[in-house]
Amino acid sequence: MSAPEVPTFDVPNTATLTISCPDQRGIVAAVSQFLHNHGANIIHSDQHSTDPSGGTFFMRMEFFMRDLDVARDQFEGAFQQVVAQPFGMEWQINYATQPKKMALLVSRYDHCFLDLLWRKRRGELNVDIPLVISNHEDMRRDAEMFGIPFHVVKVTKENKAEAEAEQVALMHEAGADFAVLARYMQILSGDFLRQFGRPVINIHHSFLPAFIGANPYRAAFNRGVKLIGATSHYVTEELDAGPIIAQDVIPVTHRETPDTLMRMGRDVERQVLARAVKAHVEDRVLVYGNKTVVF
Amino acid sequence: MSAPEVPTFDVPNTATLTISCPDQRGIVAAVSQFLHNHGANIIHSDQHSTDPSGGTFFMRMEFFMRDLDVARDQFEGAFQQVVAQPFGMEWQINYATQPKKMALLVSRYDHCFLDLLWRKRRGELNVDIPLVISNHEDMRRDAEMFGIPFHVVKVTKENKAEAEAEQVALMHEAGADFAVLARYMQILSGDFLRQFGRPVINIHHSFLPAFIGANPYRAAFNRGVKLIGATSHYVTEELDAGPIIAQDVIPVTHRETPDTLMRMGRDVERQVLARAVKAHVEDRVLVYGNKTVVF
Amino acid sequence: MSAPEVPTFDVPNTATLTISCPDQRGIVAAVSQFLHNHGANIIHSDQHSTDPSGGTFFMRMEFFMRDLDVARDQFEGAFQQVVAQPFGMEWQINYATQPKKMALLVSRYDHCFLDLLWRKRRGELNVDIPLVISNHEDMRRDAEMFGIPFHVVKVTKENKAEAEAEQVALMHEAGADFAVLARYMQILSGDFLRQFGRPVINIHHSFLPAFIGANPYRAAFNRGVKLIGATSHYVTEELDAGPIIAQDVIPVTHRETPDTLMRMGRDVERQVLARAVKAHVEDRVLVYGNKTVVF
Amino acid sequence: MSAPEVPTFDVPNTATLTISCPDQRGIVAAVSQFLHNHGANIIHSDQHSTDPSGGTFFMRMEFFMRDLDVARDQFEGAFQQVVAQPFGMEWQINYATQPKKMALLVSRYDHCFLDLLWRKRRGELNVDIPLVISNHEDMRRDAEMFGIPFHVVKVTKENKAEAEAEQVALMHEAGADFAVLARYMQILSGDFLRQFGRPVINIHHSFLPAFIGANPYRAAFNRGVKLIGATSHYVTEELDAGPIIAQDVIPVTHRETPDTLMRMGRDVERQVLARAVKAHVEDRVLVYGNKTVVF
Repeated sequence: MSAPEVPTFDVPNTATLTISCPDQRGIVAAVSQFLHNHGANIIHSDQHSTDPSGGTFFMRMEFFMRDLDVARDQFEGAFQQVVAQPFGMEWQINYATQPKKMALLVSRYDHCFLDLLWRKRRGELNVDIPLVISNHEDMRRDAEMFGIPFHVVKVTKENKAEAEAEQVALMHEAGADFAVLARYMQILSGDFLRQFGRPVINIHHSFLPAFIGANPYRAAFNRGVKLIGATSHYVTEELDAGPIIAQDVIPVTHRETPDTLMRMGRDVERQVLARAVKAHVEDRVLVYGNKTVVF
Repeated sequence: MSAPEVPTFDVPNTATLTISCPDQRGIVAAVSQFLHNHGANIIHSDQHSTDPSGGTFFMRMEFFMRDLDVARDQFEGAFQQVVAQPFGMEWQINYATQPKKMALLVSRYDHCFLDLLWRKRRGELNVDIPLVISNHEDMRRDAEMFGIPFHVVKVTKENKAEAEAEQVALMHEAGADFAVLARYMQILSGDFLRQFGRPVINIHHSFLPAFIGANPYRAAFNRGVKLIGATSHYVTEELDAGPIIAQDVIPVTHRETPDTLMRMGRDVERQVLARAVKAHVEDRVLVYGNKTVVF
Repeated sequence: MSAPEVPTFDVPNTATLTISCPDQRGIVAAVSQFLHNHGANIIHSDQHSTDPSGGTFFMRMEFFMRDLDVARDQFEGAFQQVVAQPFGMEWQINYATQPKKMALLVSRYDHCFLDLLWRKRRGELNVDIPLVISNHEDMRRDAEMFGIPFHVVKVTKENKAEAEAEQVALMHEAGADFAVLARYMQILSGDFLRQFGRPVINIHHSFLPAFIGANPYRAAFNRGVKLIGATSHYVTEELDAGPIIAQDVIPVTHRETPDTLMRMGRDVERQVLARAVKAHVEDRVLVYGNKTVVF
Repeated sequence: MSAPEVPTFDVPNTATLTISCPDQRGIVAAVSQFLHNHGANIIHSDQHSTDPSGGTFFMRMEFFMRDLDVARDQFEGAFQQVVAQPFGMEWQINYATQPKKMALLVSRYDHCFLDLLWRKRRGELNVDIPLVISNHEDMRRDAEMFGIPFHVVKVTKENKAEAEAEQVALMHEAGADFAVLARYMQILSGDFLRQFGRPVINIHHSFLPAFIGANPYRAAFNRGVKLIGATSHYVTEELDAGPIIAQDVIPVTHRETPDTLMRMGRDVERQVLARAVKAHVEDRVLVYGNKTVVF
């Protein structure tokens, strides 16, 4: 059999530096000088300031590492000392050759779930998927078809605390760097979020802040809106109120019912979630307060 | 000087019949048979039922009148007797040669206002505009440039009842069939709506039901949404809660401020309002409960 | 295991009548009267005339059949005699309970192919898929996972005629009503089209008529366009020139390469193809000359 | 009368530096260090490389100038010597307090023309408009309403060379920095472009490269496309083939005629042209070969 035409996903030897710090003069100069001095070649650079006269400054720089003059540890140590500390930066560097590990949580709607698996398979998402957790058996066959361990953790009113503890333990064990709720129909508690301690991305099936909570398509139908949407956001303890990463809408008419809205909504849900996950994976999303910068 | 290339607006000899009634069998057959029998040729036909097994039925038929075998009065009388009455229809027929009269209310933002004037001038909207009412002088010159009488009615907390009575009187005197709030920054009272007794179309600068009330761009900024929108709806006594006619959104990023959102929003506001007004003018909008059918 | 939440696809007892004939008076009246007389209740009705004063008239009527007063054969026979013949109609009636049979042809890109399989599985497309034909082995596992017979027919310059004959034979044997090229990378000959004798739907990865032929993403890159698109059309002998069913685009920037354009384009390709296939399956597409009416 | 609510356009004391040069290491570091050393605070920064391993590098930096330590002349001279020359840069600095001068050329369609005048009036475009040139009288009243000198230069087959010379002379005299063809229905000769010697922006009423030349709406109608579009591009000697700045499309159906396509297209034409002009005015567009970088 000849090789597929589809290009294998080429992970280049690049790294991404993200920074946030109080806005002040000389940041770009200091960072770019540092990278240059150590042999890193900047490919992309984005910056944003919430207020140029004294807000918070955000930056994302993607660079080639081929000719780095020191080992990563030394490089990062030097950056902390020479640049980050003087400017009071929070920062991290991620390396394309070390893909993030994504845990998937799903219930019984398959569209977002399958879409992420396909994109991973096609090389559109530079992630590893070490596990899938569900409260139902339905997606087992699809998960296993993609070679991903599938865990069922039943969640009921009574066992919620233990069930969440088990989920968190599974994710920690698998080394998950973040979790995605690909239409997972349980509300996560604050304890879950604190114990997991890493970003959790959700897809909500409305244009937030319209139609928070359950049955947004029914609510959209009742209000007679002419667009329906989807919103992907980081999960916080307050329901559907976390920082928004991506949103989109599609036009609808009076002909739709709550059922056909739900059907049409799937396409926008999976697109929006995929966009948000991709942005997260590529370190394009920086959170401040309840908002995001998406470079 | 030679004539302009722009085609003059050709008002064809067409009429539009709109119907609503309890859904039942034989409606389409009865109506189309009636029109055919009287020499009317159906050009467009749209229908909708909220529930084919017993909901409300809506229909819009546009037809050529050239060869009508009787005068309009007789035609309408026969329709009432032969078709409308047996099926329990609410109905009306509007004639393209009798454009609706549109009153414009505006405050100080010119974009929606100018857009409607311009569309009227170039023949995109088959309306007459007998008057403009404002609480400010700002738009006088533009209104007069288009040859439209401009009335300033100052509205304050104290004089609101009399001011509204004066506005309604002006509109009645001018024969207005409907009114458009082209960014008119006063809330209309229930009394205004009842006394005017005709449809009032508003443009709200958000994707309703998100961000009801004042300062929606500020609220959108605070929530960190990735889309901003506009909603055109019929005005009811409950603020920003009337039946929605048209909505649209545009993507925005973290780079925007409330000011730049406001600036970007203008383009979507004027497009959405123009679309809603055009649909209303062409008898494409049928209201039921708090929702619309837009054919 | 409890039943999935996902609603099973409910095929209602409806039928769809599509008509084309010379425009003339009384068509709507005659058809709706006929349906009414035989106990059919019209749910949706759309009509279009290329020119109300003497063009071609197109109509699509969807109706409930529950209370039909005669058997289908008699119903269709009566329609032919009473309505179709006097007006010179070409027409057909399709029944929702008899799904169309769709043959899929695919090469090595999986996105359009998987998207159609997935939509079929979740009940979005009322079709049967009796077979998949490919010139490569790559998609065998996916096809079989969905329980669909998978045939490899190698096509080379030398064997093209026989290979096509084999493909057509396979499709005829499987009773295919139409075929979809879900990124099938071979040009079909006129002989193929004539021998198959049924509609073939293609997805082309550009906004036609821009970038006809091979490598449209490369061509789009070279021209520096700010949008890339996809076009789904019926296949005719002239390359990429058949009647267009659906098109869409997405914005792109100077940052993209031909490779990233190709990656981004997948999302729009699969959406556009799915939309076209759904419209075809629901008898919404009527062809005239090199154009389509899409109700 | 109290002041209008609409904020007057606040031109901040900012400048924009645009650069293109062969890609090489250390560019960002050198430029940002230079700006920092001279007291400029970078607000926005964008960069692009056609090929990080040896293509062309483009950069746009917007900065506050408040605390510049030297006069502009010295600042620019130092930049040339210290940064631009070593890296082989083509560059320019534009100051927000010195708006570009835009010449408008228009024929008889008013929509793009009025849209630009309105945006200027509202403060959305930081430009001066020293003159309007037309081959017809039609727009005189509108131009004069905005206080802009209006020149009619009749262009015929016979007098084309002199007419163009007169147009160029008028624009040079008025100090025009660039020209916009706001639906100007004459093809400019290569001589015009060379003698004017500055950028000329056109709006073409199709999604280029589809439907080059005259009557694109008619051509779109004939091909049966499901989207119509508009393209704004820099004018070059080859018709409709210059570098594309902005494009957009809107969906259309089989119901449209060439006339209604033309009417619908106006909205997308004026939006696309406004977007392109705004990008040009804000120094966001860098041309290379036949393509653009739009930051």
